[in-house]
Amino acid sequence: MPENDKQGLSVVTCTAPVNIAVIKYWGKRDEDLILPINSSLSVTLHQDQLKTTTTVACSRNFQQDRIWLNGKEEDINNPRLQSCLQEIRRFSRKRRNTGDSTSDASSVSHKVHICSVNNFPTAAGLASSASGYACLVYTLSQLFGVESEQLSAVARQGSGSACRSLYGGFVQWKLGTQLDGKDSLAEQVESESYWPELRVLILVVSAEQKSVGSTSGMHTSVETSQLLKYRADVVVPSRMEEMIRVIRERDFPAFGELTMKDSNQFHAICLDTYPPIFYLNNMSHRIISLVHRYNQYYGETRVAYTFDAGPNAVIYTLQDHLPEFVQVVRHFFPPEVNGEEFVKGLTVCSADLSEELKRDINMEPTPKGIRYIISTKVCVHAMSTS
Amino acid sequence: MPENDKQGLSVVTCTAPVNIAVIKYWGKRDEDLILPINSSLSVTLHQDQLKTTTTVACSRNFQQDRIWLNGKEEDINNPRLQSCLQEIRRFSRKRRNTGDSTSDASSVSHKVHICSVNNFPTAAGLASSASGYACLVYTLSQLFGVESEQLSAVARQGSGSACRSLYGGFVQWKLGTQLDGKDSLAEQVESESYWPELRVLILVVSAEQKSVGSTSGMHTSVETSQLLKYRADVVVPSRMEEMIRVIRERDFPAFGELTMKDSNQFHAICLDTYPPIFYLNNMSHRIISLVHRYNQYYGETRVAYTFDAGPNAVIYTLQDHLPEFVQVVRHFFPPEVNGEEFVKGLTVCSADLSEELKRDINMEPTPKGIRYIISTKVCVHAMSTS
Repeated sequence: MPENDKQGLSVVTCTAPVNIAVIKYWGKRDEDLILPINSSLSVTLHQDQLKTTTTVACSRNFQQDRIWLNGKEEDINNPRLQSCLQEIRRFSRKRRNTGDSTSDASSVSHKVHICSVNNFPTAAGLASSASGYACLVYTLSQLFGVESEQLSAVARQGSGSACRSLYGGFVQWKLGTQLDGKDSLAEQVESESYWPELRVLILVVSAEQKSVGSTSGMHTSVETSQLLKYRADVVVPSRMEEMIRVIRERDFPAFGELTMKDSNQFHAICLDTYPPIFYLNNMSHRIISLVHRYNQYYGETRVAYTFDAGPNAVIYTLQDHLPEFVQVVRHFFPPEVNGEEFVKGLTVCSADLSEELKRDINMEPTPKGIRYIISTKVCVHAMSTS
Repeated sequence: MPENDKQGLSVVTCTAPVNIAVIKYWGKRDEDLILPINSSLSVTLHQDQLKTTTTVACSRNFQQDRIWLNGKEEDINNPRLQSCLQEIRRFSRKRRNTGDSTSDASSVSHKVHICSVNNFPTAAGLASSASGYACLVYTLSQLFGVESEQLSAVARQGSGSACRSLYGGFVQWKLGTQLDGKDSLAEQVESESYWPELRVLILVVSAEQKSVGSTSGMHTSVETSQLLKYRADVVVPSRMEEMIRVIRERDFPAFGELTMKDSNQFHAICLDTYPPIFYLNNMSHRIISLVHRYNQYYGETRVAYTFDAGPNAVIYTLQDHLPEFVQVVRHFFPPEVNGEEFVKGLTVCSADLSEELKRDINMEPTPKGIRYIISTKVCVHAMSTS
């Protein structure tokens, strides 16, 4: 509920989590409504390590809508921002007209000032648009009194993957079939407490060059990749079913393998785009190679990688295997700094590596190849109002 | 014709060219007969810069078949070598039995000593198996009197792409439909003199790691890539038609664009393989980026890249654009050495770069990123007997 002072200033602050897809979203069938060409599925991450915090103030004294991202004012006329603001206000008015709004009825006509900050550096290469738009839309909904089941479609129009950040745990974004996108919504597959052993590491590598943004990248892929349509129409539908099944069975080896395959296929589509898009660099290749060699050593998939539109790896593993794998990373990517400066977030116990493991992995160490690691897990709860 | 001295020693020496595919071969439907899952098309390169020279001697005094590659004796029991030797001897006997052999009738029962050398360093990362097996099979055919129309199928059983090195100019390897592979043969699309302005550069980059060999790589792709079947069945057939058309029309922009797209799709399939295969490294990515920025500057495709199972780029361009592009490469990859040590092979005229071009390309130079360039063109004639 918004604080409302005597001068008619209402303020709400909320936070939203980051999500990392295990079945990737790449390609829109409608650029305005942000309707995808395939369903996708993600894991929502814990907010202690990664979150966006957004404060929205609204007052009759404000002259215009304004927004500040990480302390810097940005253009409020960004079409996607405008979509979200307009949609939320439309829902709010509709609700007020039907008489079931619990919030301040007049506030919807007031201008807003929005401040949004991330607790993770932009350099972490994590797309902040998902948590950012999820947080914006949720905060506005709290301020203007909009029902939560409508937020998924609004957040989607800010940034496709934002709809998945509205829920905790394991979340699918169903592609939908309606032209107006009303059924292209996120829904929870399993809650945050379903698979508590699952752990997440973000390996932040040293990026050399700026990559193509995901909006323009996926647009070019839809226009030029002959393989993308086949992926969307034939490959992903069966992978969605399989992914939901293996999550429900908490089958880590199957979950890990499918996650890696889908990450690889997404990057394959980027390469099949013309001109080709490269998000993985030599360091990403080395991390991929390390994960496969590590799993090979144990004869089972204990660790899985996934990469979004950048070179940083997101690693999924189980709690039991975490300490050893972090030590493996330390060994093959000797860090510049140690201790908490290298592994941030959730504490990771130390572990010893056997000589046999090091020998079998048989890779040349790459000093400073990984700048730092963020250690986290699946979120406890998604959206929250502070 | 073989030299035949009094001691019954016959010696033949032949040479064979390298070929670079513009529609890539990746995946076998029959591993023993080496039958591909899609047709492919290549350009045969001039032998002055890149060739294999093979000498085969045969004598009643030889105790066993033996082979030396670049001066080092190798295992003659390699199954693919054995396939070639057996097939050539079978054809030779068949021909002798039907009475139309012009060669020494007895030699086919003698053992052979084979010496094969390449005039290009292994470090150039060019698959030597194509020119190597083409040369071996051709040289044996000269020694044993086997008709040339049978060589394509024999060379193919040594190394798939070897069948394309038997012809000059523009060569397709038709996938065929027969189970025994008798119609999976190479044939010339256009001769070596059809497009004399076409020029070729091989940009040899510094490789950091050894990659997966193409035989095991394509095997794994067939086993695991969901996109590969779609490429082979749907994408390549129409690309083959289009590639033949644009070569016949000498339409460089269309030829270049299709060449780049097919190279990218081949590497996309490698990434969609599980575990994924990476042949391109950061330097390959930079070369790709440079080519697209260069073409972008002129608003037309003047230069095209293609990459085989390694990080080195093969560049196709027209004679008129060659000097400037080489200068662009020199500018953005400042070499360690200069002059002929950097650009080997056919002489490339010097050219000046406009400040505007350098500014528009807008890339950070990468000193020593390219070790050297081999400058060459389409072959004048393919197989030859010295």
